[in-house]
Amino acid sequence: MGIELTVLDSRFTLMIVIIAIAGLIYAVLLARQTMKHPTTGGDADRISDAIRTGSNSYLRKQLTSIGVMVAILAAILMMLPTHQPEGFPSIRIGRMLAFLMGAGFSATVGYAGMNIATRANVRVAAAANKSFGEALKIAYRGGTVAGMLTDGLGLLGGIIAFIIFREWAFEVLLGFGFGGTLIALFYRVGGGIFTKAADVGADLVGKVEKGIPEDDPRNAAVVADLVGDNVGDCAGMASDIFESYEITEVAAMILGLAAFPPAIYGFKGVLFPLMVRAIGVLSSIIGTYAVRLRGERESAMKAINRGYTTSALASIVGFFILSFFYMQGLTDLNTGLAVVWWKFPIAVMAGIGLAISTNFLTEHFTSTESEPVKGMSKACQTGAATNILEGIAVGYESSVWAVISIAVAIFVSVIIFGSLGVTAFYGVALCGIGQLTLTGNNVAMDTFGPIADNAQGLAEMSKDDYFTPQAKNVLADMDSVGNTTKAVTKGIAIASAVIAAVSLFRSYIELPLLLGGELLVLDLSSPLIFIGLLVGGAVPLLFASISIKAVGKAAAKMIREVRRQFAEIPGLWEGTADPDYERCVSISTRAAQKELLPLGILAIATPLLVGFLLSSAALGGFLGGAIIVSQLLAVFMTISGGALDNAKKSIEDGLYGGKGSDAHKAAVVGDTVGDPLKDTAGPALNPMMKVINLIALLVGPLILQVSLIDESLLFNPTPLGIAIVIALTAVIAFAMWYSKRETEDII
Amino acid sequence: MGIELTVLDSRFTLMIVIIAIAGLIYAVLLARQTMKHPTTGGDADRISDAIRTGSNSYLRKQLTSIGVMVAILAAILMMLPTHQPEGFPSIRIGRMLAFLMGAGFSATVGYAGMNIATRANVRVAAAANKSFGEALKIAYRGGTVAGMLTDGLGLLGGIIAFIIFREWAFEVLLGFGFGGTLIALFYRVGGGIFTKAADVGADLVGKVEKGIPEDDPRNAAVVADLVGDNVGDCAGMASDIFESYEITEVAAMILGLAAFPPAIYGFKGVLFPLMVRAIGVLSSIIGTYAVRLRGERESAMKAINRGYTTSALASIVGFFILSFFYMQGLTDLNTGLAVVWWKFPIAVMAGIGLAISTNFLTEHFTSTESEPVKGMSKACQTGAATNILEGIAVGYESSVWAVISIAVAIFVSVIIFGSLGVTAFYGVALCGIGQLTLTGNNVAMDTFGPIADNAQGLAEMSKDDYFTPQAKNVLADMDSVGNTTKAVTKGIAIASAVIAAVSLFRSYIELPLLLGGELLVLDLSSPLIFIGLLVGGAVPLLFASISIKAVGKAAAKMIREVRRQFAEIPGLWEGTADPDYERCVSISTRAAQKELLPLGILAIATPLLVGFLLSSAALGGFLGGAIIVSQLLAVFMTISGGALDNAKKSIEDGLYGGKGSDAHKAAVVGDTVGDPLKDTAGPALNPMMKVINLIALLVGPLILQVSLIDESLLFNPTPLGIAIVIALTAVIAFAMWYSKRETEDII
Repeated sequence: MGIELTVLDSRFTLMIVIIAIAGLIYAVLLARQTMKHPTTGGDADRISDAIRTGSNSYLRKQLTSIGVMVAILAAILMMLPTHQPEGFPSIRIGRMLAFLMGAGFSATVGYAGMNIATRANVRVAAAANKSFGEALKIAYRGGTVAGMLTDGLGLLGGIIAFIIFREWAFEVLLGFGFGGTLIALFYRVGGGIFTKAADVGADLVGKVEKGIPEDDPRNAAVVADLVGDNVGDCAGMASDIFESYEITEVAAMILGLAAFPPAIYGFKGVLFPLMVRAIGVLSSIIGTYAVRLRGERESAMKAINRGYTTSALASIVGFFILSFFYMQGLTDLNTGLAVVWWKFPIAVMAGIGLAISTNFLTEHFTSTESEPVKGMSKACQTGAATNILEGIAVGYESSVWAVISIAVAIFVSVIIFGSLGVTAFYGVALCGIGQLTLTGNNVAMDTFGPIADNAQGLAEMSKDDYFTPQAKNVLADMDSVGNTTKAVTKGIAIASAVIAAVSLFRSYIELPLLLGGELLVLDLSSPLIFIGLLVGGAVPLLFASISIKAVGKAAAKMIREVRRQFAEIPGLWEGTADPDYERCVSISTRAAQKELLPLGILAIATPLLVGFLLSSAALGGFLGGAIIVSQLLAVFMTISGGALDNAKKSIEDGLYGGKGSDAHKAAVVGDTVGDPLKDTAGPALNPMMKVINLIALLVGPLILQVSLIDESLLFNPTPLGIAIVIALTAVIAFAMWYSKRETEDII
Repeated sequence: MGIELTVLDSRFTLMIVIIAIAGLIYAVLLARQTMKHPTTGGDADRISDAIRTGSNSYLRKQLTSIGVMVAILAAILMMLPTHQPEGFPSIRIGRMLAFLMGAGFSATVGYAGMNIATRANVRVAAAANKSFGEALKIAYRGGTVAGMLTDGLGLLGGIIAFIIFREWAFEVLLGFGFGGTLIALFYRVGGGIFTKAADVGADLVGKVEKGIPEDDPRNAAVVADLVGDNVGDCAGMASDIFESYEITEVAAMILGLAAFPPAIYGFKGVLFPLMVRAIGVLSSIIGTYAVRLRGERESAMKAINRGYTTSALASIVGFFILSFFYMQGLTDLNTGLAVVWWKFPIAVMAGIGLAISTNFLTEHFTSTESEPVKGMSKACQTGAATNILEGIAVGYESSVWAVISIAVAIFVSVIIFGSLGVTAFYGVALCGIGQLTLTGNNVAMDTFGPIADNAQGLAEMSKDDYFTPQAKNVLADMDSVGNTTKAVTKGIAIASAVIAAVSLFRSYIELPLLLGGELLVLDLSSPLIFIGLLVGGAVPLLFASISIKAVGKAAAKMIREVRRQFAEIPGLWEGTADPDYERCVSISTRAAQKELLPLGILAIATPLLVGFLLSSAALGGFLGGAIIVSQLLAVFMTISGGALDNAKKSIEDGLYGGKGSDAHKAAVVGDTVGDPLKDTAGPALNPMMKVINLIALLVGPLILQVSLIDESLLFNPTPLGIAIVIALTAVIAFAMWYSKRETEDII
């Protein structure tokens, strides 16, 4: 099937397969290496086991219920028409299988990454007794397992689809991407609800009502809280980045096909982004070995950053060599002019530049040393309100700069590839490829966060005298570095989601053209498209509103359970009996799953309703509105939440009266407001914006056929179209009702 | 000059002039009538004088500094090219004069409305001693003065420009609209900063530090607080609605010209919206007489609503009669099919429907009886954080519904006029015309708010025994009704700003075509236009961030002054000496003016930079992004602020422990967070979104000539273009620096 490969193309194809598998093997080796390190053999082991059991049981339960949804969607995918001319039934099957594979890979990345993280934590804690350097190495390499899995599986999926389907691979990969995105949506949103329900529940009963410290083992919700860190930050984040990784590949492949037709150029446009990624895998591996302390005085952050820089430099050299030998002889479709080879690595580097500027912005707006956070700590002196207002203002401002840096990255692509047509968007997709080149490092840095956090929690909760005071210091230091690396990865995840969504958005417009149809013109001045823009912009707010409320409801259930255990378990308060940690975990689990449902439905059904009711062009407007508002809101929530968190930390470190002062109380209120924003609602918007774009791409052909308003924007209903619109309306109404069905009383 | 008028057209023109003047005469009569009522002759008179002096001195100072800006902009307007072919120099002069007129009218509406309100307050207070009915009548009719001025001047400006310039009138009216919008921006933003600086300052020193009640006359900032109500709610809101009123006229005239060319149909498309407005003036006058109590038991809200319903019914009858006799024989440009007469009144009624649904939504999300507010009061029991999270979730949800109702209104226009081309947007403009048909009533209701609020404040602050307990009850009741009417008008102001902005947005695209050029295609899939969309979406957040911080800085100054007076004025605490109210007013005044500057500059310079740097098409994308995000953010801020306010009121009325309880403290924190959102940042977005759209329309022709990227999206720089881009960048950098130049310590 498909166009023949040139010799060069087939060599590169082989190379990509080998590197992808190498990445996976490396992940396995690292995992084994991690497991070889000794555990504490004491209290910490027991608690670590509880955390792992809880995390795994959550994910297993969630996968079971997701499984049902995946099966239903796989069946629907089989029925949906594809973009291809008739006579390609194998594509539907391929797409459906790819969907299952994407879901499976995404689930695997999350599950395996989390599993190794929950095993690494106690080993890191044990190593802290020996040396800082050793602890750091185990934590980072444990995190790298998830990173290399993301890299390897993402690359493998892409290249397998390409080998089988060639120029139709993108259609199959849409299924792959959708599978990954769906799991990420559920992991991320579910994980977010899980972790904040446990966190808020544990804090409100423990710290506020009972006056016991944060990680007190008598608090039944404490293990759920630690489980939540793993579920949200390991599994959720890894699968979120995995899907961005996949989706930028899909978009780059579609746009590469459109910009450089394979009939003329071979598959250069398609294979180049995959080769860039392969270079990234190798660079990440090299970078791992740069993450080691040079003398015990060096800070962990510095070592981690050295790893990042090493990888970045290695990959940039790789890009230029690759392009020089591979990206020759290409011309621009619109202008007919030659596209010189060095333009491609520069477009990719724009993505690395965007990742670096995202890091910088995150640091500037959320680090405890920054002006904005200092201003917020100061504002705590006049109370929670002034602190929160500062937090809101800071969040809004950071959003502005984040958008501008993304706009600049797109503009760079315009400067390089011209402002006309698809080549510029191929550049944008390459920027997305570049952003996630160092996914190995990014996921490693992110997973490092919960490992360090859990290791410190284990040291706190252990009743035996295993840990030396020095070890506790080491772990506290690593925990605070982990907070920074987590925040940085969140920033990159958002920016990459936006770039991925933008590339998908253009793919949505390009596909009909690619397949011999007409280019979809998304003229904003058409009233229907403007309506699409308005409604699309509203969806992220609906999502945020529902997920914030979901945390509140789930936290209420948790509070009741913790109170019950204190009241009913004899000896718990005195420390002679253990609380029932498992029950709290399963409360968070069930709540997260329940509250997920309406969000999942809305993410899938709303774009479909707009498309089937108001035309595929209106759906294009919808995508535009959803992207811009999701981006603004996600950054706002993440940054203001992070800044409010660190303002509290600054005060806890002794500023303005320290712990227990009025300023501290104000800061705690601010932090509690920020928590569900930064850990539930904000992160949920990443997969959401990608889901709606993928849905549009997947269902686009059917929408073109049966939308009530047709391509020429005239009313032209079909019975099937009417039936679909009615069904979707009913489904959305159900989801809205379901999200409001119970209003739990916290008291 | 221009196309000749038909007999029918000239008769209607005359009628509009007469009705506009009748509206103005009615305003004068009502003002006189209000002044005839007696004042209290006691303490209240003295305080009322202080409020009036303060309000007037603020507006006078502000007008002086705005005057400079207006003069500069008038000069720039004279130099800017127009959309017309050459040989129409008189249009530039006309536009400049219209700009001055628009600014003057807007300033007059604000000033006169506020002036009469500050005179009515003490008369309402005096009348409360006699009867509820009498007090209500004076308050409502005092408010109607501003309403009728808005109506009369708005209509007069439109028709004068039409009489002189005919089919070029829109160009002149762009100047008129811009003048009005500029003043509204300054009144609204300046007023917002003024009022919240005074409010927060008065509360933090008075209530929190000194433990004295809200309107205690010893607090030096108390008068500034009452002045702020007038400045923000009377002057700011009246000029805000005045500009929406004008701008929907301008947009309807442009789109009317484009949809129904005068060479064929005469000026039906242009005069119809003006006639609709004229009917609105008459209906509002009729409605005034329905606002009287039927028996002392009736609630004030019911009487005010009766006035609204009466006006609405009268106007609807008028629309149908008008259309039947006037809007005959029109055909659609795109389809060539006849446009039957009844379509026009239905499009107008969609606007009234939107106004009503806006009222409903505002009530549903913010009234003390509503589920969302009840949920928030309940959440106060677990602290400020849960309350604020609920408030955020409620605000986001309300935004979703507000957008959907606007989308439905636009869709109605699509159903009526088809989805192709300009006629549908003419329908949208008619919807905007319809929304503001009852501007007389709306502004009256809004101004009623501060009159009632001030009247109650006067009764509280009076030390003599003038007021009977019954009178105080009457005034408290009226005050709470005033809170509802204010909230309702805010909702309508936002919705009308969005509809006005949407109509202007289409006008921006339509103008080049109307003038023989090519239609601007705003294809979202072009990278430059997508960049425009992203940056446009970011601007409202920047605006919100700066204005929230501005309130904080101004409040800090106020706090220092109030503390100083308590420390330095002997006898103030004992009540034997008066504080220096005047000084606090002038602190708020100066702060408001200073903080305004960067916001004013950014609103004007940002769209210009996008246009000159990235092409006029990118500017189109920018407008789209700015409209959708402004709308979402403005509704979110207004509704969550209002709901947080009312959650506090519910608790103060005795829920969950009432005043002084922990729940009350949590509610106060929530209210303080909501205040700057709902009274400064949110309302500032209305004029902002209109300013940027008008700027685009006014500067559009120059942008087409010298933008660095030309119409065909190719890089094509001119020296003038480069110079402008550099200058704008410098100006924006200055504004950003200026907005951060001082960080006041609140402590």
